[in-house]
Amino acid sequence: MVKWGILGTGKIARQFAEDFRFVKDAELVAVGSRTEVSARQFAETHQIKTYHSSYEQLTLNPDIDVIYISTPHTLHRENTLLCLENNKSVLCEKPIGINVHELDELTQLAREKQLFLMEAMWTYFLPPLQRAKAWVAEGAIGEINMIKANFGFKANYDPQSRLFNPDLAGGALLDVGIYPIALSLLFSNAPIEDVQVMSSKAPTNVDITDIYQLRFSDGILADLSCSVGHSMLNDGFIYGTKGHIHIPNFWKARKAILTQYDGSEPVIFEDSRESIGYNFEADEVTRSVLAGKMESEVVPLSKSREFLSLMDKIRNDIGLVYPSEKSA
Amino acid sequence: MVKWGILGTGKIARQFAEDFRFVKDAELVAVGSRTEVSARQFAETHQIKTYHSSYEQLTLNPDIDVIYISTPHTLHRENTLLCLENNKSVLCEKPIGINVHELDELTQLAREKQLFLMEAMWTYFLPPLQRAKAWVAEGAIGEINMIKANFGFKANYDPQSRLFNPDLAGGALLDVGIYPIALSLLFSNAPIEDVQVMSSKAPTNVDITDIYQLRFSDGILADLSCSVGHSMLNDGFIYGTKGHIHIPNFWKARKAILTQYDGSEPVIFEDSRESIGYNFEADEVTRSVLAGKMESEVVPLSKSREFLSLMDKIRNDIGLVYPSEKSA
Repeated sequence: MVKWGILGTGKIARQFAEDFRFVKDAELVAVGSRTEVSARQFAETHQIKTYHSSYEQLTLNPDIDVIYISTPHTLHRENTLLCLENNKSVLCEKPIGINVHELDELTQLAREKQLFLMEAMWTYFLPPLQRAKAWVAEGAIGEINMIKANFGFKANYDPQSRLFNPDLAGGALLDVGIYPIALSLLFSNAPIEDVQVMSSKAPTNVDITDIYQLRFSDGILADLSCSVGHSMLNDGFIYGTKGHIHIPNFWKARKAILTQYDGSEPVIFEDSRESIGYNFEADEVTRSVLAGKMESEVVPLSKSREFLSLMDKIRNDIGLVYPSEKSA
Repeated sequence: MVKWGILGTGKIARQFAEDFRFVKDAELVAVGSRTEVSARQFAETHQIKTYHSSYEQLTLNPDIDVIYISTPHTLHRENTLLCLENNKSVLCEKPIGINVHELDELTQLAREKQLFLMEAMWTYFLPPLQRAKAWVAEGAIGEINMIKANFGFKANYDPQSRLFNPDLAGGALLDVGIYPIALSLLFSNAPIEDVQVMSSKAPTNVDITDIYQLRFSDGILADLSCSVGHSMLNDGFIYGTKGHIHIPNFWKARKAILTQYDGSEPVIFEDSRESIGYNFEADEVTRSVLAGKMESEVVPLSKSREFLSLMDKIRNDIGLVYPSEKSA
């Protein structure tokens, strides 16, 4: 039995706690917030026996093996360091750091401490994505030519908000643009040879919309985009020489559709899970911790490093440096 | 009454002739082919009173006002020149030339001869596209941020075929890639400030798949792609600050869906036309010729010049020069 704590009590923490009832060999034993009232309310709502009115107290709780970090991404580095220093394994929300330097610092400490660390790329564990991977491995779509994905939603512009404030590492890329990147990096493991990007900026200089093209050394092209200025049809497509796979709302997928060019009927995989789907990543962490592993084989830190290296490159191309990076 | 002839008897000529029964104030009086048997069969099938066993004979028929050119695109220049020299107005299949120089030559002769000339960008005249334009004009989606479109289908590789043979100006861009370009240029009239492209090539060096990004000077970004290596969901999307328009199978659209961010129900425009939709472009030509115009206001030659200038630029970026251009 792996014992979990949750650090942070926002929307995604609530959803994660709801989905936790489906996690195997694991128990949610504590929650920590910066305020006692928030921690207590969260614990009552989700029937968690212990609550802590500071993040540090949570990380000092000797009953906890793993902490799920659900805070905004500018806090991921400091929250993860705190957990690791206090000998807790970590599942950290996306992006695990705001740049590759932050990730490298976290990776180094996790290795020194021999602790498990993983970025919460929950999409990778969803059954429709796993089914799509299996179809590709079985040769169902031949060789992959092209990957298409986008993620966009309409946010109201507020220069102080998380999404638009550069002090909070705002912008579309780190918030939603990581998902199309992750999808393309799930289906090509080859090095990225070329990246081209176009972007629209908010008055605060963070990115509202990005279009980014990738060329992998195995010849796969990726046509990706993201936005916080407009909603999109957020479907993912894997196009191959013999067919293609369509994943509606790929980032939270419940379905995958295989179409082959041999004229056979499309194959539809439907996942009737009751959960949103956060339980699968928690299962992975639990299994890995029980097996004494320090990384996930599905979302290893090297994969997170690819995500962040690419986002660093894209931000460099569009001239987006966060204030915390300038002083660094 | 405007009297029409058809030059060429391939698949699109057959479809055009079928749709011609819906064209107003026009009569299809003759067809011309390189062989008598083909011309006669076409005339019989479509109940056309006159057939000609050469293109030249067709263009010399004094009963004809306008000729629709349906030949492969490497022949468009020579076929159009022949028509114009013999004082026929022309509706020419897409692309009207294989590069901007060919178009400029055709434009010059059409103006000298005071004859009507238009590229057969039939998509522009389809009711769902006209409805989408009207929605944008009414402010229904606010200011446009981004346009997304792609057109892909799976062709079997044959180095001698029209699609893969460089001598026939093969490749995805000229065959299907013009449609996403045309969609983006229907919704932004601003100059293109930047173009970025990635491409996969066939062994014959023509493009199998292209991803191309545009930035217009009005700030609109376009995320476009095309392929003859795989089929895609060929939908077009116009994203604005207040909502978006989704046009399923935009190139032959029968529907347009308006979604606004004010929470109102989506508005669905459905076109129940019986025709494929080629009659609308023929109506435009007929109206224009009857009005004594030399160009269409919907698809003027300046618009065709934008399509070809952009395709020239993309081909330059991906290193695709056709043999006929090297000798020129």
